[in-house]
Amino acid sequence: MDPIGKRRWAIAEGYIPPSSPDASYELKSHEAACILNAGDRLAQIKITIFFTDREPAGPYLLTVPPRRTCHLRFDELDNPEPIPVNTPYSSVIESTVPVVVQHTRLDSRQAALALLTTIAYAD
Amino acid sequence: MDPIGKRRWAIAEGYIPPSSPDASYELKSHEAACILNAGDRLAQIKITIFFTDREPAGPYLLTVPPRRTCHLRFDELDNPEPIPVNTPYSSVIESTVPVVVQHTRLDSRQAALALLTTIAYAD
Amino acid sequence: MDPIGKRRWAIAEGYIPPSSPDASYELKSHEAACILNAGDRLAQIKITIFFTDREPAGPYLLTVPPRRTCHLRFDELDNPEPIPVNTPYSSVIESTVPVVVQHTRLDSRQAALALLTTIAYAD
Amino acid sequence: MDPIGKRRWAIAEGYIPPSSPDASYELKSHEAACILNAGDRLAQIKITIFFTDREPAGPYLLTVPPRRTCHLRFDELDNPEPIPVNTPYSSVIESTVPVVVQHTRLDSRQAALALLTTIAYAD
Repeated sequence: MDPIGKRRWAIAEGYIPPSSPDASYELKSHEAACILNAGDRLAQIKITIFFTDREPAGPYLLTVPPRRTCHLRFDELDNPEPIPVNTPYSSVIESTVPVVVQHTRLDSRQAALALLTTIAYAD
Repeated sequence: MDPIGKRRWAIAEGYIPPSSPDASYELKSHEAACILNAGDRLAQIKITIFFTDREPAGPYLLTVPPRRTCHLRFDELDNPEPIPVNTPYSSVIESTVPVVVQHTRLDSRQAALALLTTIAYAD
Repeated sequence: MDPIGKRRWAIAEGYIPPSSPDASYELKSHEAACILNAGDRLAQIKITIFFTDREPAGPYLLTVPPRRTCHLRFDELDNPEPIPVNTPYSSVIESTVPVVVQHTRLDSRQAALALLTTIAYAD
Repeated sequence: MDPIGKRRWAIAEGYIPPSSPDASYELKSHEAACILNAGDRLAQIKITIFFTDREPAGPYLLTVPPRRTCHLRFDELDNPEPIPVNTPYSSVIESTVPVVVQHTRLDSRQAALALLTTIAYAD
């Protein structure tokens, strides 16, 4: 398939809710970036995390194979450093080939879960 | 009306929650793509589904008549194959005429429903 | 202020939940289009509603004064006809001057409310 | 990093829910604009608030340092005047350098919180 998307994306809102210890993996609070690589070439991805009061963290490196999607959970990033919970952040996602990025959060801090999503911003 | 929209759309986030057996049709967990064809020509739609660890599924074919909207539920697609529940996926939606695509999920796994929506990404 | 926005917008997802009789006005289930006219000229707005299985309804006509916002509830439209509840629809919003349109729903059918929003699609 | 974003953004939907007195700071109902300045120059930000039935409020002035993000809560703006709760409004956000703006609300008026988000509209 012809590639679809852009090579540079930003998510201005970022926040990993504190842990929900009794929840299953799917229902645990989490923040994700879904990255679709619909084309036929490997996507090399570089993520930079921005904070309110310190220099950015990263780069976090990963790959998305051709014709595959990656539902990346920010709370699972740990190299070069984990992202702190309960802390506002933003992210910039750069790719070597066009991809589509969508931001999603599941928050299960309270009795019923809450969801949000948006297509990220692409230059 | 003059057509509005684009011919090629992507939704990077996709997830059909496990079933909510006691819910009514409207309150059952579901994932939908709302496709508006505001113009005066039939839209022939082709959907491709991307996964994390296997080749894409599809094409799923449907039509949206002129001046009509289609609220497509991904859990009702079954030709060439149903989309598995509880599995991350992404979708690319291609149309022969301009359409507008919006992604929505209703999640009723817990006591209170949760909702998300975003206009999809168009090249 | 210089005007910001576009003259033609689409919201592909539309659904007015059935009534929540005990709710206050603010907490009653509703579907809204927020229309910002940041410029210095009156915006004359024309809304057309698209359905799954019948011809479109409308036009619904309204105005948004200069430097004002309008949080339009779709369940309050009644001329030329009300929009049925519990029925999927889409909308196209046309303006004589640039405006910005955002789609929001509050769903209070269950014990806890759910919210969704997205900036609408602009050509 | 090369700057990413635009200099002029609009959020058509705005609403600060009435207070949730027992909630912690993080779980109190709030409306936020997350502003990412990924570039290497200070962003001087000017916010104007639009209402249904009066002239706009503002300008509200703030800065976002280079390589920083700002999760601005609208209920904390108070100069030149606070934004009233339970009142629909819209906002225009102007910056001297490119930034990315995302709109988020957390509503905890009821037993379980609700969330919404969208990338704002950029000209």
